[in-house]
Amino acid sequence: MRTPADNAQLALLLEVAGTPKPGNVDRDRDLPGLRFEHFLAGAVGAGAGLRAAPDTPLGESFERAVAGMAEQDGGNTQFGALLLLVPLVKAAAMDDLTRDVASAVVDESTVADACDFYRAFDHVDVRVGDPPADTELPDVREASEAVDAVRERELTFADVMAESAPVDGVARELTDGFERTFDAADRLAELDGPAPARAAAVFLWLLSRQPDTHVVKRHGKRTARRVMVRAQEAREDTAEHVRAFADALVDEGINPGTTADLTAAALFVALERGEVPV
Amino acid sequence: MRTPADNAQLALLLEVAGTPKPGNVDRDRDLPGLRFEHFLAGAVGAGAGLRAAPDTPLGESFERAVAGMAEQDGGNTQFGALLLLVPLVKAAAMDDLTRDVASAVVDESTVADACDFYRAFDHVDVRVGDPPADTELPDVREASEAVDAVRERELTFADVMAESAPVDGVARELTDGFERTFDAADRLAELDGPAPARAAAVFLWLLSRQPDTHVVKRHGKRTARRVMVRAQEAREDTAEHVRAFADALVDEGINPGTTADLTAAALFVALERGEVPV
Repeated sequence: MRTPADNAQLALLLEVAGTPKPGNVDRDRDLPGLRFEHFLAGAVGAGAGLRAAPDTPLGESFERAVAGMAEQDGGNTQFGALLLLVPLVKAAAMDDLTRDVASAVVDESTVADACDFYRAFDHVDVRVGDPPADTELPDVREASEAVDAVRERELTFADVMAESAPVDGVARELTDGFERTFDAADRLAELDGPAPARAAAVFLWLLSRQPDTHVVKRHGKRTARRVMVRAQEAREDTAEHVRAFADALVDEGINPGTTADLTAAALFVALERGEVPV
Repeated sequence: MRTPADNAQLALLLEVAGTPKPGNVDRDRDLPGLRFEHFLAGAVGAGAGLRAAPDTPLGESFERAVAGMAEQDGGNTQFGALLLLVPLVKAAAMDDLTRDVASAVVDESTVADACDFYRAFDHVDVRVGDPPADTELPDVREASEAVDAVRERELTFADVMAESAPVDGVARELTDGFERTFDAADRLAELDGPAPARAAAVFLWLLSRQPDTHVVKRHGKRTARRVMVRAQEAREDTAEHVRAFADALVDEGINPGTTADLTAAALFVALERGEVPV
């Protein structure tokens, strides 16, 4: 029997094995400087943090997973996916994996978890822009140097996620009780075919439903919304159209990373429930 | 820093990511009933056994790795690769990874290790034919039922490998001090390009040098020798020729599995030495 940590690692691997995943690295696509094998190594490296998760505080497990993930030449491969997977692994190790149990893991998080979340940014360059002017959150680009400010303001990990939720689809998911993750997991279960094909289909479905916040951060809301509409059109068209859409996003340098993170989290839930064949 | 167990897992993943690997599943190839994702799940499942290897007897670690590997729907994905990797992980955890250190791990193996080697066959269907008439070894198809006979004859794991060496390329490697593994690792280090491309090139090189014993067992010596010659011809020709050779082997149902096992082992050695970029 695979453990929750094993299933999380496998979810990371199945996510990148699904193709086409428009704009992203996948089984058939390398990007310049970011290649398939970097995701394989990222999944392997994250293993120790994922295995620690059941018995280790949330933030510490996450930081350890990110540190291991970053031990490859591609840079930030799976930061957002791990931000979803670590609390899900804790939840799965604790009880039946439900939205309530997963939400409780986030709700019960501490200031120390928030400090470790900021420390995780020491290991990666997430290349985010300036934070919104009205936020009380320290800038994630300060990484571990933000820890004193986090402590002073007594921000828990849940507080940081709630404050980031309006602009970050992963933080929103952690705040909203993993709604899209579990919806996508249901969809993975309903589809036919091998797991990577289901992953690719669910990626496109997620992309067609909400603007990808990683695309918003890099290219603006209008582009992200347009990508969503193009995903809707591609879904209603042929497989060839989907491949053309995938090529076009790569040409435009558009990488819907948040949608990939959600796909990995959904794969984890479906694997834990034994609802996707491997 | 990746641990030896991490590098072993990554070696399994990089092996299957290399393409084209004529006759085998790879990043661009699924076979009927044996798909890319089965190898991903096999690598994840083998993790616990690989992580146990530094502090656990050889046979027990191997059996645990195989049991975990087999937890997917594709069947026997990486049995031979794990037979090479488990002693190599033990060696790497113990000292600088050299042929001498790796040989010592095999030489010092016990009757209990041989019993666990036979027990590992409980988890897989390796579909081998009748053993040679002149062998004193119990038939591996008896799996754990052979344990009493192993104990009676006081066969160590090294004895079993030495006796199997004439007909099995993995056993030969364990008996010959991992000669081809380390030669192939040197070659991986000398090549240019991304790790999976180097893996594919080294696979073809190994295939061109000796008949694959997995092919011998399934299709006979003549076919295996002919595959070796065709690999030599493909290496001297274009990439297109190599792809045509890959397609042809799949059409003929020929799967050079031993060569894939050696490729995974060579990737491990090269990763441990930091001589292949990921």
